[in-house]
Amino acid sequence: MTAKYDIFEASFAGPASGNPYLEVSFDAVFAQHSREVRVPGFYDGDGTYRVRFMPDHEGEWTFRTRSKTAALDGKTGSFAVTAARPGQHGPVAVKNKFHFAHADGTPYVPFGTTCYAWTHQPLAMQAETLETLGKAKFNKIRMGVFPKDYPFNTNEPLQDVYLPGADGKLDFDRPNPQAFQHFERQVGKLRDMGIEADLIIFHPYDRWGYSNMSAEQDFRYVAYLAARLSAYSNVWWALANEYDFLLDTKPVAQWDRYFHILEENDPYGHLKSIHNGDQSMNFDHRKAWVSHVCIQNWDVKRTPEWREQYGKPVVNDEPEYEGNIWPSWGNITAQELTHRFWTTVMRGGYAGHGETYADPDDLIWWAKGGKLHGEAWKRIGFLRSIVEEDARDGLTPMGHNAAWPWSRISGARDGKVSYIYFGEHQPNQWTTGLPREDGNFEVDLIDTWAMTVTPAKRIAALVPHPTRHGEVVRGGKPDAAFGVELPSRPYLALRIRQLD
Amino acid sequence: MTAKYDIFEASFAGPASGNPYLEVSFDAVFAQHSREVRVPGFYDGDGTYRVRFMPDHEGEWTFRTRSKTAALDGKTGSFAVTAARPGQHGPVAVKNKFHFAHADGTPYVPFGTTCYAWTHQPLAMQAETLETLGKAKFNKIRMGVFPKDYPFNTNEPLQDVYLPGADGKLDFDRPNPQAFQHFERQVGKLRDMGIEADLIIFHPYDRWGYSNMSAEQDFRYVAYLAARLSAYSNVWWALANEYDFLLDTKPVAQWDRYFHILEENDPYGHLKSIHNGDQSMNFDHRKAWVSHVCIQNWDVKRTPEWREQYGKPVVNDEPEYEGNIWPSWGNITAQELTHRFWTTVMRGGYAGHGETYADPDDLIWWAKGGKLHGEAWKRIGFLRSIVEEDARDGLTPMGHNAAWPWSRISGARDGKVSYIYFGEHQPNQWTTGLPREDGNFEVDLIDTWAMTVTPAKRIAALVPHPTRHGEVVRGGKPDAAFGVELPSRPYLALRIRQLD
Repeated sequence: MTAKYDIFEASFAGPASGNPYLEVSFDAVFAQHSREVRVPGFYDGDGTYRVRFMPDHEGEWTFRTRSKTAALDGKTGSFAVTAARPGQHGPVAVKNKFHFAHADGTPYVPFGTTCYAWTHQPLAMQAETLETLGKAKFNKIRMGVFPKDYPFNTNEPLQDVYLPGADGKLDFDRPNPQAFQHFERQVGKLRDMGIEADLIIFHPYDRWGYSNMSAEQDFRYVAYLAARLSAYSNVWWALANEYDFLLDTKPVAQWDRYFHILEENDPYGHLKSIHNGDQSMNFDHRKAWVSHVCIQNWDVKRTPEWREQYGKPVVNDEPEYEGNIWPSWGNITAQELTHRFWTTVMRGGYAGHGETYADPDDLIWWAKGGKLHGEAWKRIGFLRSIVEEDARDGLTPMGHNAAWPWSRISGARDGKVSYIYFGEHQPNQWTTGLPREDGNFEVDLIDTWAMTVTPAKRIAALVPHPTRHGEVVRGGKPDAAFGVELPSRPYLALRIRQLD
Repeated sequence: MTAKYDIFEASFAGPASGNPYLEVSFDAVFAQHSREVRVPGFYDGDGTYRVRFMPDHEGEWTFRTRSKTAALDGKTGSFAVTAARPGQHGPVAVKNKFHFAHADGTPYVPFGTTCYAWTHQPLAMQAETLETLGKAKFNKIRMGVFPKDYPFNTNEPLQDVYLPGADGKLDFDRPNPQAFQHFERQVGKLRDMGIEADLIIFHPYDRWGYSNMSAEQDFRYVAYLAARLSAYSNVWWALANEYDFLLDTKPVAQWDRYFHILEENDPYGHLKSIHNGDQSMNFDHRKAWVSHVCIQNWDVKRTPEWREQYGKPVVNDEPEYEGNIWPSWGNITAQELTHRFWTTVMRGGYAGHGETYADPDDLIWWAKGGKLHGEAWKRIGFLRSIVEEDARDGLTPMGHNAAWPWSRISGARDGKVSYIYFGEHQPNQWTTGLPREDGNFEVDLIDTWAMTVTPAKRIAALVPHPTRHGEVVRGGKPDAAFGVELPSRPYLALRIRQLD
């Protein structure tokens, strides 16, 4: 018995000699009624072959394996799929063009963090990371399959991802099953905590050779990941972190091929994107095989531009990190990161968290996990709870083409709720963007830093002095039914709920 | 006797009947040795005609008038020009492509403010404005020739700029000499205080009809301004504030014509630019008749882009204003405006100040002058004093094409001094951009808000862990001879002076 969106796994004995990774292939066709789903299998070492399937419908399923290797061909079985466990809403997909939802329709509003190499740290630290994640409110984590070699990241990984060859060097034709078993165990724990695992497949922070495998080795690796991990409902595919720093050896066509290999081998079509280093080097996210925009960009007020440019959900996974290390992507204040989250979300996008405070032992959340030391993560959790209270179809930014005043301040609507986020602006009153018609509205003032929500004081709508200038929008008539008095300090937001 | 860069004026009696503004023209040719300068004259009412000349060379000058009107033709005279008064450095022009200097070579580093309609307020308030300017350290002010009708600007002007016609309405073929006499008196006071008068010729904030004159009336008005005001050494021509809000009646070709009329009638070629409303509506500042870039844009980290786009000095006259009024261009915090000034200047541009705190009587600095109530103006004065201490050729931003880390933090060099401004970044140490060679350097830590300068604590240059990632710039070698310890708080800058 398998619950919907959990994993059904079947294993088979097969050849253990030679190099099964190169020489043996098999898959299985899972069937329910007239529906058939092809699922690739993989070699898990010690003569064991496995196939994993994530059913998305309850009821009876059957399967039959296919292989040129007799021991793995024509194996059949059946199993029952029960209702999903509580809290298991299924994989996340794009919904409403710019937003996300789980397979069961539950809105998914990403508030992610970043611990690139947490699964490669000592086990006690990995446990601490999970404990911290249990307290924070992140529902996505960016994490690499490979370990990381980089400033502040000089320790050896817990395990090598490939086995050593005869020369003692890693043999990129022999994956290390134990390393992957550990990795997917951690992905499974995240799944059970309700956290999406945004898996970074390639990155350039490397001294072991992972970033310099041959194209063929890369292709096999991507297919292997798809076979091993696709059945985890919380998987997202991040083709790369900073793909542009790998362009010298992996041209764009090769990146496209990785996407296609995932399309061919991930039966569930998990979300797929790819992250840039240089701000001017966004991948062409318009390509059909890119499900959403993943970028690194500090200029978060431009979020609506990226929505328009790509026509897909925008996840700005690196609007810079809270911290004080020397790299300038990793040393903004907690206030600034909180501000960038609010700005991004209130312009119809999604942002990602990272924390990079200098540590005498280089134990920094962003790469290794462990403990959080900063202040932004709490405010991001607060923002998540605010947005999720009313989440329905996703937030659409107010204004159009950065129209006044929405190029300067931020505002967005989702169904019967709208928000206005003032950020560094501190008006003493506000009218624009409030409801145009009288009605039963609840208007709250949100202090994004103090994390408080209090009723806002309503006042008469502003009637600007009529002038030739801008007359179309505020020519002597109020553009809303009422106004709100504000306390002339920054980092405030309004929430306007229609109660009918 | 006239001092160099001051005004020599000659006046003549001529026809007072009919409409001399339309019917009489005259100019004078001023000569020294083989040099001749054509200077247009103007009618100043009551049968009086004047011609004003700003000599730029000492010694004897002569002039001869020319007119089809006999009374104004062939008048001659001569006068001696002495050395410039102390503090009078002559008109400002572009120097070193992206910067400015006075005619005598003194660097001019603009730190401007904005009081659109200060010359149209009651005289006591005008005196207060001048008193405030005497305490602040602004060296440029944006000010309109016409009065202003706009939110918070509903009072009547001190004088009409044109005389009433028979129907009691303003006759845009009859300038009011007294209004212009007053205006230029105030321009002269600013000149004597060392403040450039950035004169806004057209703007859309109007209920009197000034923004709806005919094209011919506009052309005559621009020529009249040139004749009256060009001899003031501190004049800059701002063709418009928010020209794009006037495009419905004044197409781009007409704006070009205004520029050309100034070229034809301003013998000194004062600086000329034009200011936009919508951030996407920058004028094409590449045109030969635009001397420098004047823009309104909050996204000040993009300053180097505008330098590259236009190849001229960039003056961002509206990076939003400090205040708390409801329009969102006028309600950022003092901290934020100070931050935008530092960011702009440390990326090779120039910024403009405005202050817009709500006032029960709508007495707001940005439009009316009077008193300053905020906090940014002091910090801007501090920034000016910092930059002027070492100003030589102007600041060139570090990095190129927004290279790492200079897209995130700001830094600039001018001769033997360089600055690094961290803004919202708070690294605990810094190396990049510090001197590459050992030498006699003085390194100071500047707190841009507290306005303090203290010696920075030097430490060993950072030697980053070598990685494939970004190896070119920081592949295991320090990129400077030493590093600096920093206190992990925002809004700090470093100043590095080479003492040899």
